[in-house]
Amino acid sequence: MNILIKNALTILSEENHYITKRTDIAIKDDIIFAIGEIPSDFTPDETIDGEKYLASAGLINCHTHSYMSLYRNYADDLSFSDWLFGKIDPLENKTTPDDAYYGALLSCIEMIRTGTTTFTDMHMFKNMTAKAADEAGMRAVISRGLVGEDENFGGAKRLDEAFEEMENYKDNRRISFMLAPHAIYTCNTEYLKKIIGIAIGENIPLNIHLSETRYEVSESLKNYGKTPTEYLDSIGFFEQKTLAAHCVHLTDNDIEILAKNKVSVSANPISNLKLGNGFAPIPKLMEKGVNICIGTDSAASNNSLNLFRDMNYTALIHKGVNEEAQCVSAEEVYRFATKNGAEALSLYNTGELRVGKKADIILLDLNSPSLNPYNNPVSALSYSVNGSEVDTVIIDGKIVMRKKQLLTIDEEKVYYNVNKIIRRLSK
Amino acid sequence: MNILIKNALTILSEENHYITKRTDIAIKDDIIFAIGEIPSDFTPDETIDGEKYLASAGLINCHTHSYMSLYRNYADDLSFSDWLFGKIDPLENKTTPDDAYYGALLSCIEMIRTGTTTFTDMHMFKNMTAKAADEAGMRAVISRGLVGEDENFGGAKRLDEAFEEMENYKDNRRISFMLAPHAIYTCNTEYLKKIIGIAIGENIPLNIHLSETRYEVSESLKNYGKTPTEYLDSIGFFEQKTLAAHCVHLTDNDIEILAKNKVSVSANPISNLKLGNGFAPIPKLMEKGVNICIGTDSAASNNSLNLFRDMNYTALIHKGVNEEAQCVSAEEVYRFATKNGAEALSLYNTGELRVGKKADIILLDLNSPSLNPYNNPVSALSYSVNGSEVDTVIIDGKIVMRKKQLLTIDEEKVYYNVNKIIRRLSK
Repeated sequence: MNILIKNALTILSEENHYITKRTDIAIKDDIIFAIGEIPSDFTPDETIDGEKYLASAGLINCHTHSYMSLYRNYADDLSFSDWLFGKIDPLENKTTPDDAYYGALLSCIEMIRTGTTTFTDMHMFKNMTAKAADEAGMRAVISRGLVGEDENFGGAKRLDEAFEEMENYKDNRRISFMLAPHAIYTCNTEYLKKIIGIAIGENIPLNIHLSETRYEVSESLKNYGKTPTEYLDSIGFFEQKTLAAHCVHLTDNDIEILAKNKVSVSANPISNLKLGNGFAPIPKLMEKGVNICIGTDSAASNNSLNLFRDMNYTALIHKGVNEEAQCVSAEEVYRFATKNGAEALSLYNTGELRVGKKADIILLDLNSPSLNPYNNPVSALSYSVNGSEVDTVIIDGKIVMRKKQLLTIDEEKVYYNVNKIIRRLSK
Repeated sequence: MNILIKNALTILSEENHYITKRTDIAIKDDIIFAIGEIPSDFTPDETIDGEKYLASAGLINCHTHSYMSLYRNYADDLSFSDWLFGKIDPLENKTTPDDAYYGALLSCIEMIRTGTTTFTDMHMFKNMTAKAADEAGMRAVISRGLVGEDENFGGAKRLDEAFEEMENYKDNRRISFMLAPHAIYTCNTEYLKKIIGIAIGENIPLNIHLSETRYEVSESLKNYGKTPTEYLDSIGFFEQKTLAAHCVHLTDNDIEILAKNKVSVSANPISNLKLGNGFAPIPKLMEKGVNICIGTDSAASNNSLNLFRDMNYTALIHKGVNEEAQCVSAEEVYRFATKNGAEALSLYNTGELRVGKKADIILLDLNSPSLNPYNNPVSALSYSVNGSEVDTVIIDGKIVMRKKQLLTIDEEKVYYNVNKIIRRLSK
């Protein structure tokens, strides 16, 4: 299907910065076919009047656990152990695959409504995220969370599940996969080495939680005499392309290791604050050239999957921590949430509005207070919008939301089901 | 006019905490007439089906400069002096009263849309905020910002303007006033003493920027041998009821002084981060029993007047700074943004859904991803909503927004005008 967006205020990449101008965008099937000068023989099936829209590349959420939106606002203001062992674990143990599917659909609703077109998921219910993302029309990079103290027990089974769903979705062009050993404290060295071997052999990128808490770091020092980053480096983890989530507690040497190995780091600022973990050293990582992207983490520790909120935190908190108003700019944050996210996920065909890239486009309603006056749209996306300005969402060339109406998901049914599910789980 | 809200999920105060239950709310003219059992002779002129709504007291924004929404997203990622002297001041010097009126209307649009029913404004264009707030149907506590190195020049004129607008709006039950010496670095001691005398004589509360920057503190120590708080205390400032904005850089003694004098503190977390000022010691202030409320500050340093964002920051940043997930709870933040705000503004008749209080009520659409499942609505308001869930807003018993349609302001006209204004100002 061909779509023509006429004369939208559009954020375009130009070398290393962004420009905003009124222009036309032609979409042919799943691809941005032309921007600006539209070939005269291009015949749109649908034309969108862009006069009242700001057009941007869709956002890329680089760390979440979508099924956990079931547990939104269920366990707050608790210590990490009370939160996890007292509240979340007992629910999780009763959660069924069908529950997880509705949780993931709830996440897709919130992500689409707030401009996210691609997300990275680490899950524990095989096929359920992929099923929800596919039905929602979203782009997703999915990982079965791999936990294993001993590969002969749960670890091997989970790896099998990971490969089973890769096989199931191998022909789906919107769904791809990573291998995700959960963390160094939930996988033993033998299991990690096995996963590294497979990842390199099959050329599947790796995704892991890294240095999220002080406790993780102190245990690592105690057990291995190394920081978590040094330990992973020592067992060859970073020989495969890696996306590391959190990275709150890093030494300067850790930062050097991540930079040298071109590890992408997903900042999850809201989750890190909510669980009392602190502030990741994003400015230092930037200085060393690390590819920074942004994630929401799950709704159990955020409590939202609205990436605009995490963009706003990423732009603001480091200014406060460093008492330096020029630290981490609006434009840098916008890049983290789009182009850098695509790079982190090896989705080199999205994250920018550029001819030949995938048509993953969001249109924001310029008749919104947060966008007026139209002084600087990139600043607006990092500083003033709340996500509700997103009016129309196109993913892989398909309109999945038009004028704030979701076209792919029956929202009321999802709300009905998640409430029914949580009543059962929390009994 | 009588309004009946039927069976909404409602957040009610119960002694020192909040409960949520399905109930009916009857509004008679500007007052909450009954909650729960509705007298049989109550005849509503309008009935709102509350089945799909979460009902809450309206939010109270305790610090802003509403005309400055004109400068939204205009000057970002700059040092404080480049921001103020390089970008904002030159615009401000060209801004006319009519421009300020449109800026204030833009702010009212954003505040109503995101659930704020009352705001506190410090302005520099007499009558313009009051005019905008009155037309928008909002409740506002307004102050002419008083700046004076010498009371015989600008200082006296500004005080005259303050009294002139108090006289103009003395019969308006939604508009009240404070006296607002801008800050200790923009008023000399003589002028401050004069204002204190008038405030006590006329019994008008005081509003001031306090200890916002490290520079303000070091200059105060240099000039007076005292911190800003100690200095104000020494000249008798706190003998009148005071609302102090920011309070980022406080000593333990400052905190004691503020607590002893029952000064209310408006936390403005986003503005303090954006300008690189840091984190106010909110947990310490709470420990000493200081009345904390929340403000957005202006859109030139936020860049939004959506108080839900500042509530979220207030709930999260102190958990990060103190590495303590139990620090500042959702319920405390909700109280800061409602009841404590009312207390800070001496508006003892709003800030809670309670019989006899003013009917300042917001209804949020439960069919929103951020509110599902309905696990804990108070947590939702502090942690997961983005403000766009607000569907219907009642202020002083009048519906000012119904099903996301503003009834009091012509939005498109405001957007047209603010864009035209900023083009002229930035030439």
